[in-house]
Amino acid sequence: MNVPRTIEWIGDLNGHVRMIDQTLLPAELKFLECHDAGSVWEAIKVLRVRGAPAIGIAGAMGLVLGVREAEEGDQEAFFEKLREQRDYLAGARPTAVNLTWALDRMVAVANDCSAKGVAEIKAALLNEARRIRDEDAASCRAIGRLGAELIPDGGTVLTHCNAGSLATAEYGTALAGMYVAHEQGRRFKVYSCETRPLLQGSRLTAWELTQAGIEVITICDNMVGALMSEGRIDCVITGADRIAANGDTANKIGTYGIAVLADAHGIPFHIAAPASTFDLNCSSGSEIPLEQRSADEVRSLHGRPTAPPEVPVYNPAFDVTPARLIHSIVTDRGIIEPVSSEAIARILHST
Amino acid sequence: MNVPRTIEWIGDLNGHVRMIDQTLLPAELKFLECHDAGSVWEAIKVLRVRGAPAIGIAGAMGLVLGVREAEEGDQEAFFEKLREQRDYLAGARPTAVNLTWALDRMVAVANDCSAKGVAEIKAALLNEARRIRDEDAASCRAIGRLGAELIPDGGTVLTHCNAGSLATAEYGTALAGMYVAHEQGRRFKVYSCETRPLLQGSRLTAWELTQAGIEVITICDNMVGALMSEGRIDCVITGADRIAANGDTANKIGTYGIAVLADAHGIPFHIAAPASTFDLNCSSGSEIPLEQRSADEVRSLHGRPTAPPEVPVYNPAFDVTPARLIHSIVTDRGIIEPVSSEAIARILHST
Repeated sequence: MNVPRTIEWIGDLNGHVRMIDQTLLPAELKFLECHDAGSVWEAIKVLRVRGAPAIGIAGAMGLVLGVREAEEGDQEAFFEKLREQRDYLAGARPTAVNLTWALDRMVAVANDCSAKGVAEIKAALLNEARRIRDEDAASCRAIGRLGAELIPDGGTVLTHCNAGSLATAEYGTALAGMYVAHEQGRRFKVYSCETRPLLQGSRLTAWELTQAGIEVITICDNMVGALMSEGRIDCVITGADRIAANGDTANKIGTYGIAVLADAHGIPFHIAAPASTFDLNCSSGSEIPLEQRSADEVRSLHGRPTAPPEVPVYNPAFDVTPARLIHSIVTDRGIIEPVSSEAIARILHST
Repeated sequence: MNVPRTIEWIGDLNGHVRMIDQTLLPAELKFLECHDAGSVWEAIKVLRVRGAPAIGIAGAMGLVLGVREAEEGDQEAFFEKLREQRDYLAGARPTAVNLTWALDRMVAVANDCSAKGVAEIKAALLNEARRIRDEDAASCRAIGRLGAELIPDGGTVLTHCNAGSLATAEYGTALAGMYVAHEQGRRFKVYSCETRPLLQGSRLTAWELTQAGIEVITICDNMVGALMSEGRIDCVITGADRIAANGDTANKIGTYGIAVLADAHGIPFHIAAPASTFDLNCSSGSEIPLEQRSADEVRSLHGRPTAPPEVPVYNPAFDVTPARLIHSIVTDRGIIEPVSSEAIARILHST
């Protein structure tokens, strides 16, 4: 896979974090070298790194940077510093569930080592941060091996937003099957919806698939119907932000419309997501909270207005696709097909 | 109706053409005062005036400017100048059917007056240009009176692109019913799709409805499904670029996807267009030619990239909505409902 690593730790404990600055894509591929927690905090804050798994990895690695200078003689001061840095980094994106999940996992590892010296705890923390990254990569690869089977040789796949390498350690979720199919020498084309308002599809998905040598065609979100009616789409694969116990799936705004169109044209619609995306506390999609975002995301681009500055805007970040429109859900533990509460429970209780 | 006139002739034969410079909207409302054919040609060329009827009016008025300085003693030289200016203006947008239609109608009027003196022919041409404008305004008002009945009091309407006052002499087609309903004191809300890639919905429709005091909310094109699933849309009204003999309708890319979503949610989907939009030479939508436009419309905005510069793009200007998804077609001669070849033929043969 030729896509540069989204984020990784370079060297030993004296090393640093290297990540792709995603705010500069697709115009420029620039790596950000972070030598302290402050620069990781800033990168998370302004979306230089984005995508739930990638943010979690950044937080974990940022925490290593935040405590590695701590004096090794004073364990109490070390743990105080650890908690302070944990809270600091968690504040970079307060609503990102993966960020606090990863930071708390790091703190738990430190607590487990509290009988040891500070130097050993620091080493354990670096190991853990790397493990979080490697586990995510393994999870994405597992999704990819299963997802690849959905892609017909010589066929075309449609995807929405960026559920790719850039959102994870590598491979991604929706795009993982495409990378594996490409490695297997299968030939196919990807149509990538640009994904208004923030254009993650045209800025990021088109960029990373091009890097990998996969044929990708960018379209505006409103062109999906025309493509499908012309018989040019064989299947749809998207990621997921949260999946309810019954299979209803919240994902980037626009996903639901694509699922309805796929259904109307008899085209299979698949979701690809790790088991951690399921939220069994939500029995159905109606219980998933849907974030409304700033009107200015829609009203301007590149600092210039695209609409009257005072016009009201409806700008939900997500919509919900009901389980009945989802042909299968590809997880790191297996494929759920057909989608039902029972099949989901069965996969989640397997190990 | 508080929306400024898109285009009009100011004064007598010594007067000039005044039009809204639509390239500056929504940031600035600026009127362009054209005193010669060259400035009208430039305005058509770079889309300061756009929308099929408005372009036709601009061409007709531009032709008056192009010949009014001609010597009055030499009729032969006058007709030569007329043909030269006709061809010059027609070249500003070679594929715009309304432009050549309006110019040829002007030339025919001059030919009909050829027994008269040049001064009288010039006066007849100015009258005809004004008549083309007034006929379009009357046609739009007729559509508006019928279209207003589709808008429920207290309801919400969704529209796509700009089939409004700015595309015509005034009132528009899809928006005409909204203006009339507003004049009648009916209360309703309009959701306006921004309409990628050129954003005619957020730049123009949102602007002109705001000017008129009609409540309008801008959305990205991919938000239609979410709105409909929340029960927030009562009906859809869009314009049309060309309607086949069986009712299949070509309109701005994205219209078909909206029609499929409306059908899936049991929401009526209407087209509003003058009788001149029907093309009986096309028996069905498959015979309507669909223009592919430049990839850079999708790959950049405001001069900055929104996608990798080399990525292939699929950018059709239009899609086709099959008649079976269209609840009614509102024309200046009456409403066609249900939509069938027979009902269309009946309306078109009425006068």
